[in-house]
Amino acid sequence: MPEGFTLPRGMHDIYPEEMAERLWLYERILNVMRRYAFQLVEPTPIEALETLEAKSGPAIRDEIYHFKDKAGRNLGLRFDLTVGMTRMVASRSDLPEPFKICSISGMWRYDEPQFARYRYFHQWDAEIYGSEHPSADAEIIALSIDILDEVGLGNHEILISSRPLVEGYLESLGIDNKNTREEILRVIDKIRKAPRPELVERLRPLTSSQENLESITEFVMLKGNPDKILDELSSLKCRSESYIRGLETLSSLVEYLGWYGKLDRCILDMSIVRGIDYYDGIVFEAYDRGGEEVGAILGGGRYDCLGRIYGNRDLPATGVAGGIERMLISLRREKLIPEGVSQSPKVFVASVNDGVRGEVVALASKIREEIPCEIDLKNRSLRRQLEYAESIGVLYTVIVGPKELGEGRVKIRDMERRMEEEVPVSSMVDYLKGKIYI
Amino acid sequence: MPEGFTLPRGMHDIYPEEMAERLWLYERILNVMRRYAFQLVEPTPIEALETLEAKSGPAIRDEIYHFKDKAGRNLGLRFDLTVGMTRMVASRSDLPEPFKICSISGMWRYDEPQFARYRYFHQWDAEIYGSEHPSADAEIIALSIDILDEVGLGNHEILISSRPLVEGYLESLGIDNKNTREEILRVIDKIRKAPRPELVERLRPLTSSQENLESITEFVMLKGNPDKILDELSSLKCRSESYIRGLETLSSLVEYLGWYGKLDRCILDMSIVRGIDYYDGIVFEAYDRGGEEVGAILGGGRYDCLGRIYGNRDLPATGVAGGIERMLISLRREKLIPEGVSQSPKVFVASVNDGVRGEVVALASKIREEIPCEIDLKNRSLRRQLEYAESIGVLYTVIVGPKELGEGRVKIRDMERRMEEEVPVSSMVDYLKGKIYI
Repeated sequence: MPEGFTLPRGMHDIYPEEMAERLWLYERILNVMRRYAFQLVEPTPIEALETLEAKSGPAIRDEIYHFKDKAGRNLGLRFDLTVGMTRMVASRSDLPEPFKICSISGMWRYDEPQFARYRYFHQWDAEIYGSEHPSADAEIIALSIDILDEVGLGNHEILISSRPLVEGYLESLGIDNKNTREEILRVIDKIRKAPRPELVERLRPLTSSQENLESITEFVMLKGNPDKILDELSSLKCRSESYIRGLETLSSLVEYLGWYGKLDRCILDMSIVRGIDYYDGIVFEAYDRGGEEVGAILGGGRYDCLGRIYGNRDLPATGVAGGIERMLISLRREKLIPEGVSQSPKVFVASVNDGVRGEVVALASKIREEIPCEIDLKNRSLRRQLEYAESIGVLYTVIVGPKELGEGRVKIRDMERRMEEEVPVSSMVDYLKGKIYI
Repeated sequence: MPEGFTLPRGMHDIYPEEMAERLWLYERILNVMRRYAFQLVEPTPIEALETLEAKSGPAIRDEIYHFKDKAGRNLGLRFDLTVGMTRMVASRSDLPEPFKICSISGMWRYDEPQFARYRYFHQWDAEIYGSEHPSADAEIIALSIDILDEVGLGNHEILISSRPLVEGYLESLGIDNKNTREEILRVIDKIRKAPRPELVERLRPLTSSQENLESITEFVMLKGNPDKILDELSSLKCRSESYIRGLETLSSLVEYLGWYGKLDRCILDMSIVRGIDYYDGIVFEAYDRGGEEVGAILGGGRYDCLGRIYGNRDLPATGVAGGIERMLISLRREKLIPEGVSQSPKVFVASVNDGVRGEVVALASKIREEIPCEIDLKNRSLRRQLEYAESIGVLYTVIVGPKELGEGRVKIRDMERRMEEEVPVSSMVDYLKGKIYI
């Protein structure tokens, strides 16, 4: 095969078996999002490059696909769904608020491909626009937990923090330079991937004193039951305005999470700060309780400033996203996708000879009104038809022969038990419906 | 708003109202494809440029989005789903044959944007690989008709022809040059868009005699009931081998279409040749019977050679594709999408005062186990909550007040009739389920 005709590096085709798993998963995620009254949308995959750069600056170009169109416009492929959804909402002032939307779709990043990490991958994403109230963050976290439960990944816990609170704490230590604070947040964000001594070494040049260094490392170790951590955060008596507001918001969030009945699924963890630039409020990530170290299965938070960039008006926003491929890995590993998940038809209609091909088509059309079914499309002998039916894994084969047909009957073969029964044509569909769970 | 933050020219965001229509449409199309045992797949949106050029040559570059990645590889965005699906199947020799797959997804072409024609648009697509038999073409055409019926567009008829038959006819006129024949096919393909005298003028330079010109224009006027046209095609006594095989195939196709019970929906029409380069067998398009001149709503045919290019082995193939946006236009124009199609929640749960916000969240969580519902996420007064509920079009609002709650009851307001009933909390969900069709 000429090299040019292969799949480009890092790209991904979805074949029927994998699509069956995805359809199973998408349906479950969409179900929960629907119950929470999120409405499905799809932003354009191609954005103006300026839109993609709006928050991160031109540095993002290294990580994305971008190009000029024939009119010289700078365009790029979306790297997440949040940016496009925010631009969609920010560009319209006629939408009700809050406006709750969701999406499941593909995106592209120019990463080095790794095991199950493609340059083309999919996320599910849910966002609430137009509410600055922590009840919206609680709604997002409750949704996230219900999605995990619905797909069978209830063994994950939600680790929650607040960017303004952590930043306020750093401020109160006298770290006045915003860039230094952001640098520190970036180091903290790596805490799950690097050993602690290494982090201390990386924090040292960013802090002015050993005391500060110890305060920070101690602070980001705060992790536990929400009420307990809220008490500890209060007892720090930190006077930074940002800290005080952050703590109030976090308390209100915890109150709401209690009302949602989700508090036992949530942990406050001051080391959660999220890497992505646009977050500026409550942030959270979900990890396997068993400590499986494959990264967060979902994450999100509040990003009140992004909407203002795109829409030139206040548009508070909070949301969550999760990787579909990442979720599929966990689901497969824990064997949580039901075995029967498949797109293969369960019924084949075979012709004993060429004289009954017309009847086979007519009978298959009748079955197809109720049950997916397959027929021979290669003009094969009965033996070859049965081999094919076996190879695609059908459960029942209707065998149409001239003799039985003359008596108004067909044979139906149970492919697994290798048993046949004669059934009147008039009750064929009901017989199959009784045997097959569609 | 800075210009750079708008949607790029020709691109398209799908907002909730349009997505609701699409979900309605996709579900219907997928249902029919599933019944016919097609399995859903998704080829990568980014292909190697060579893959996209394989059949059409570098000329296609003018019509598509293409670019180099950071490693200097030539890539392009898919312009249809057929190319990717064919590459997917051709690159695997372990798949059962026939292999029947389908897809509904987006693609890109660098066209001049027009009314409802975007540079980013969607198609549904179904393909059968591994059968050279006309029964596969019949299956594709039967599927197409059932899809049109399922979505309510049964007023369309399928116009069918055969490329080898038409080419064979041209051969028999002494037009030996393949390029000239293809040039003639391209002119014929325009027959629906240009007045007849213009076509004659465009055909004249491609034919050597007035007699040939008349023969061709007469031939492409052949159109009508399949059995009648088959008779006329036979009576032409054309000796070209390609013509004879084409006619045999067409006769067999017509026999199968009869067995599918679809013959009254089909017309043989020798002016159908399909523009796209890869077709080389049976071809067809569907048009509004009423003569609505907005182009074909779907089209397809056989392309046995494309698989050989990608896979270096014989891979006969036949399929169909239709434009989603094109279909939505017809559906909207004929008001065929049910009025109730919407993603808005039907229920809102309101709090009379702040003291019951916790109960509101708990009751809403209960309702959400069965019915999508919305709550206040902005800490609004009851009056503002009811205004919001009205603005998003909910049918019922559950009003939670401390007094009623103390008696184990809630008020449920019928928003349209503006009537309220008190309902025990224990039967609230059943009450709503009885009122709302989900």
